Amino acid sequence: MSFTVGLGARIRKSPFYEAMSAHGMTYASVYNKMVLPESFGDPDAEYKALVERVSLWDVACERQVEVVGSDAFELVQYVSARDMAGCAVGRVRYAPICDHEGTLINDPMILKLAEDRFWFSIADSDLLLWIQAIGAERGLDCRVFEPDVSPLGVQGPRSEDVMVDMLGEWVRDVPFFGFVDVEHDGIPFVLCRSGWSGQGGFELFLTDGSRGSDLWKAVWEAGEPYGIHPGGPMSDERIESGLFSYGTDCGGDASPLEVGLGRFLSLDREDDFVGKVALLAERERGPARRLVKVLLSGERLAVPSEHPWPVYAGGAGEEVGTVRSAVWSPKHASNLALALVSSEVAGGGFVTVTPEGDELEASHLAYFGE
Amino acid sequence: MSFTVGLGARIRKSPFYEAMSAHGMTYASVYNKMVLPESFGDPDAEYKALVERVSLWDVACERQVEVVGSDAFELVQYVSARDMAGCAVGRVRYAPICDHEGTLINDPMILKLAEDRFWFSIADSDLLLWIQAIGAERGLDCRVFEPDVSPLGVQGPRSEDVMVDMLGEWVRDVPFFGFVDVEHDGIPFVLCRSGWSGQGGFELFLTDGSRGSDLWKAVWEAGEPYGIHPGGPMSDERIESGLFSYGTDCGGDASPLEVGLGRFLSLDREDDFVGKVALLAERERGPARRLVKVLLSGERLAVPSEHPWPVYAGGAGEEVGTVRSAVWSPKHASNLALALVSSEVAGGGFVTVTPEGDELEASHLAYFGE
Repeated sequence: MSFTVGLGARIRKSPFYEAMSAHGMTYASVYNKMVLPESFGDPDAEYKALVERVSLWDVACERQVEVVGSDAFELVQYVSARDMAGCAVGRVRYAPICDHEGTLINDPMILKLAEDRFWFSIADSDLLLWIQAIGAERGLDCRVFEPDVSPLGVQGPRSEDVMVDMLGEWVRDVPFFGFVDVEHDGIPFVLCRSGWSGQGGFELFLTDGSRGSDLWKAVWEAGEPYGIHPGGPMSDERIESGLFSYGTDCGGDASPLEVGLGRFLSLDREDDFVGKVALLAERERGPARRLVKVLLSGERLAVPSEHPWPVYAGGAGEEVGTVRSAVWSPKHASNLALALVSSEVAGGGFVTVTPEGDELEASHLAYFGE
Repeated sequence: MSFTVGLGARIRKSPFYEAMSAHGMTYASVYNKMVLPESFGDPDAEYKALVERVSLWDVACERQVEVVGSDAFELVQYVSARDMAGCAVGRVRYAPICDHEGTLINDPMILKLAEDRFWFSIADSDLLLWIQAIGAERGLDCRVFEPDVSPLGVQGPRSEDVMVDMLGEWVRDVPFFGFVDVEHDGIPFVLCRSGWSGQGGFELFLTDGSRGSDLWKAVWEAGEPYGIHPGGPMSDERIESGLFSYGTDCGGDASPLEVGLGRFLSLDREDDFVGKVALLAERERGPARRLVKVLLSGERLAVPSEHPWPVYAGGAGEEVGTVRSAVWSPKHASNLALALVSSEVAGGGFVTVTPEGDELEASHLAYFGE
């Protein structure tokens, strides 16, 4: 399918939009009702820059939900299926968020800014509304809102060198999932060692939306000696690296146990949290489906799959799930996919059918998250 | 800006996607994480078909939130800022939904399917999560979920004739905002006299996602004698007709009183509902801003505005709001816009500035909603 997608005022643009446009963005998606730049014209070069050098991403669509006030911790702890007790100020926890039925509805990083102040850096669903509703209905004393915060991603093996050149040697001491407040040439941001690739890197949470082009430029200039390249999150690299994509791998229709996020749940906590009863029951009986990483037969896929593809058990032909995302993997030199399938077939092979009617054979590579 | 938007598996496609593709969709948006087809290559012809004949739209992105169970009415009534008491089965009410601070977070039609069963036909925000949270936290006995329902729009002055030819003379008796269950050639849907244009028409809420192409074909064949044309919601027509667009005209940052939806609020209800206290206080002091319809000077705009544009009070230059959406209006033979501006300047004229730096003069046409 080839058509243009209109970006009227309803689809927001980030503070980095002008800089990205100037760099020649050619391909984008829409995420949390914002433009998510994905390519600047040469995906092979972008993949190479990401895994060998350094890549610069506008990921402002990772919106922040701020919870602040005397009951902020109580609210954060109640909505998070992962225990937030013991998380230090200046540190991050990746936390599955479930609804009252134990269904995964988002998988943010939670940044603890102060004892009474947190950011949820969210995936593609309106977690803001959901947290606001719970806080208000429980009568908790805190404010839940979207602050003026826009993450810029610096990803790849040379990203530390870039940030050191830009900010100083101290950057090397920032631990994984740790963050610090920075002001650089008057541009305020939070520097965090995190990001949605397996190549290492940082996210710079800009806290003044009027300074987007300035921050982009500062990173770009520091990165030029290292061959920095504009880019964006890549389906192939993230599947190779085992990173979960809420909205793609599931979306309001699966539990965290099914999609391999069980290790981030704190089900044996004594305090109550949303979805606890349902998740404990599911752990007891075992998840009905599993998210699995598989190699797919067939010619090199030209573009990532646009739809979920039906999955059939080998031979018999019973429909047992869907391929959620399929890509060509440079690392495996094969088509690669994540499929959400019945637990009964998850450890073996199966057949999936593309929209063109091609039957591709899937062979088991790993359970996602293991 | 010209770039392609990728529609990976995260952006859902509707049951009508194949039919729309076959009809040559050229331009789409993303709404509620789904493809929203907007044009098939000739906007002028599409406008003409909509206001003079009949147009066929895939509006499946108007997702449904179903609330069903013994406490369903209690939940619906509590989350709706409009009184739902007295709404008959088979009828619809347009209802602003506000958060606990009185901020508008969606503006669905609510369909009363039975005494204990409702659909919210939603605008572009995850109202599902928010209603689920409130229902669960209040311990109400009902289920809140997204059913397999996909609206198809038939809009324009000849749409009644099309539906009569397809279904029978009885269609003429369906009142505005009334609906009936239909099964046509085995295709199940709810026929409702409604739609997001000012030209009259129907929405067919398909209740079996596997029958999308069949329903599209049945309407298309009935419409051919009337010159039916594929199309989609049009910014120009909807502003001319005074239809509100949540996400464009405001988005989580304004009250219903500011954006001219006051007549749909039931603030003097005795029972409690979300946002009541804040809305009563705001009515008392008067809204700080107003949404106004204005004529804009300057050359014909080629495409609808992509960003909000800053608005300045005439002469003095103080920033007093934003133009939320600007279009060329065939009806007014002028540029036309909706602007959300300080109440102090709302009844007069002001200046807005485009991204190219052009200053356009705005002259007051009407308060939106009056």
